[in-house]
Amino acid sequence: MTNRQRFINACRCQPVDRPPIWIMRQAGRALPEYRALKEKHSFVEMVRTPDLAAEVTLQPIRRFDFDAAIVFSDILVVPEALGQPYQFQDGKGIEMTPLRNAEDIARLDGSAVRERLDYVAKALRLVRENLKDRTALIGFAGAPWTLACFMLEGGGADDYTKAKRIFYSDRPLFERLMKKLTAAISEYLQMQIEAGADAVQIFDSLGGTLASDAFEAASGRWIAEIVQSLKSRVPVIVFARGVNGNWNDLVATGAQVLGVDWTVRLPEVRTRLPHNVGVQGNLDPFIVTTTPAIVAAETRRLLADMRGLTGHIVNLGHGLPPTASLENIAAMVDTVRAFA
Amino acid sequence: MTNRQRFINACRCQPVDRPPIWIMRQAGRALPEYRALKEKHSFVEMVRTPDLAAEVTLQPIRRFDFDAAIVFSDILVVPEALGQPYQFQDGKGIEMTPLRNAEDIARLDGSAVRERLDYVAKALRLVRENLKDRTALIGFAGAPWTLACFMLEGGGADDYTKAKRIFYSDRPLFERLMKKLTAAISEYLQMQIEAGADAVQIFDSLGGTLASDAFEAASGRWIAEIVQSLKSRVPVIVFARGVNGNWNDLVATGAQVLGVDWTVRLPEVRTRLPHNVGVQGNLDPFIVTTTPAIVAAETRRLLADMRGLTGHIVNLGHGLPPTASLENIAAMVDTVRAFA
Repeated sequence: MTNRQRFINACRCQPVDRPPIWIMRQAGRALPEYRALKEKHSFVEMVRTPDLAAEVTLQPIRRFDFDAAIVFSDILVVPEALGQPYQFQDGKGIEMTPLRNAEDIARLDGSAVRERLDYVAKALRLVRENLKDRTALIGFAGAPWTLACFMLEGGGADDYTKAKRIFYSDRPLFERLMKKLTAAISEYLQMQIEAGADAVQIFDSLGGTLASDAFEAASGRWIAEIVQSLKSRVPVIVFARGVNGNWNDLVATGAQVLGVDWTVRLPEVRTRLPHNVGVQGNLDPFIVTTTPAIVAAETRRLLADMRGLTGHIVNLGHGLPPTASLENIAAMVDTVRAFA
Repeated sequence: MTNRQRFINACRCQPVDRPPIWIMRQAGRALPEYRALKEKHSFVEMVRTPDLAAEVTLQPIRRFDFDAAIVFSDILVVPEALGQPYQFQDGKGIEMTPLRNAEDIARLDGSAVRERLDYVAKALRLVRENLKDRTALIGFAGAPWTLACFMLEGGGADDYTKAKRIFYSDRPLFERLMKKLTAAISEYLQMQIEAGADAVQIFDSLGGTLASDAFEAASGRWIAEIVQSLKSRVPVIVFARGVNGNWNDLVATGAQVLGVDWTVRLPEVRTRLPHNVGVQGNLDPFIVTTTPAIVAAETRRLLADMRGLTGHIVNLGHGLPPTASLENIAAMVDTVRAFA
């Protein structure tokens, strides 16, 4: 069984020889070869240059032979393709000119998403060529709700209130923004699938800022539209961080796999879901900053807890911390590979 | 039925004429009378001066006639009483000299908690005298886990890793710190009960940073020890924000009432709990920054969802935002009062 087949089978809750493993943000600052490249090129330059994006995507595969690669990019390429540029400043995070009113929202232009994001398709094709059938390749995008939060705040914020304000106070305007985002994200993911993605992940990193009663209308239904637009061509993974009170709404998105953070017990979540919906996660990202012995123990515990349940992709419950050590990542991978 | 009786009955899952209401952080920056006082006195000065703390505690009661008052204080008075002082700087948050090693932890001195926190007892007695039997009075403390996080980081942090590091890597040292905190918090809450508190709330604001599998050992068992030490003299409310995968562990603390944030559905949580454990929350704090009509609609929806379930205390799912408007707070209170 190849890594690629193992990953795709797990997504579809089909039998596997062992659970597949990849790590969110596996391509990036935890790797010395990434940091070396970063001395010569900015983050945005690496995202926009297919050769560099492909190289960064492949770095963790060469080092750890993960079952899946995820294309090196950023969720904010979609707002940029709609006409709202961003800068990423080291130590300062994301900066964008915020959308300030209905006119700014009306001005977002989704007519050229594929052309403007062609560099991502090029990177995916380069990676696909290199990986051949050996390793799965994941494409991704931010969820409409999460992108709307960033676009209205103009980047990261202590408290994401602006999208909520429109959601509660001006629903028609909120829906106009969501429709534009939903269409652009659908188009973008479609393009990534055509360029060779075996699966796509939708990151609703800010879904957990929403009240449980608001999640479906503010986020879930738009994700569902995106999933539907992809017509089951590849498995869709939906990771709505902090959304632990809306499993039914998440299942209703049509996702094949749900990402799960570290604040809930994975076997409990898995057994609550329909038998054909898989789970991905949910180790505390902190553990990969401890020691190999702790990483191995925690990973073994998770694997033992999930034994006998199909549809489990091993991952952290959020992105890999830049402070993770290589030996800890290796301990996590080795433990999964040795599990029987 | 007095406000006080209504609140106590709801804590004990006994019959009430309508659900009681109070709001976390109801005493504070949302009120103009607080801001006026704040021009003359610093936050720390108000916390430490019984007359001022009592006045600030009573301000929201005068204005909104809440069913319960909560003493104006801060969870960091306990580290201070153990010998680790803090400053609170407007716009900059909390600053403390962090605990750096085992010696710093050994140096924490719990022998004078009552003496050093006598100003809180004095404030409680003043408030109790003023409220008489009309309004319930709540005392509070931070949970050991949450206090440990702040004490080791030296204040607020983007990512609370230092307490986790000790928890995973040096369990005996972690337990020494927890034992000191547990003893000090028990003593402190005991003192608040003697000074007139009708109930006490334990805030585990950072409980949600823990992996579900770690919560019991890192936080829950220490809260349980505190609850046990209070011998059911008054109801204990435990609010572990973001801890939505550990309801059994939270019930096992012995809490009479569990605080619930806004990311889960309150009736679902209530029906999962034993019939004698109540719930408190869970409106999205954001709504009190919108309009009275939206506040009224959301509050009515919550009340309708909870109809027929005993043991519900209406509250937000986290503290009152400073940007809440007075008319929105009034709309929330009026809606609860009019509910039948």
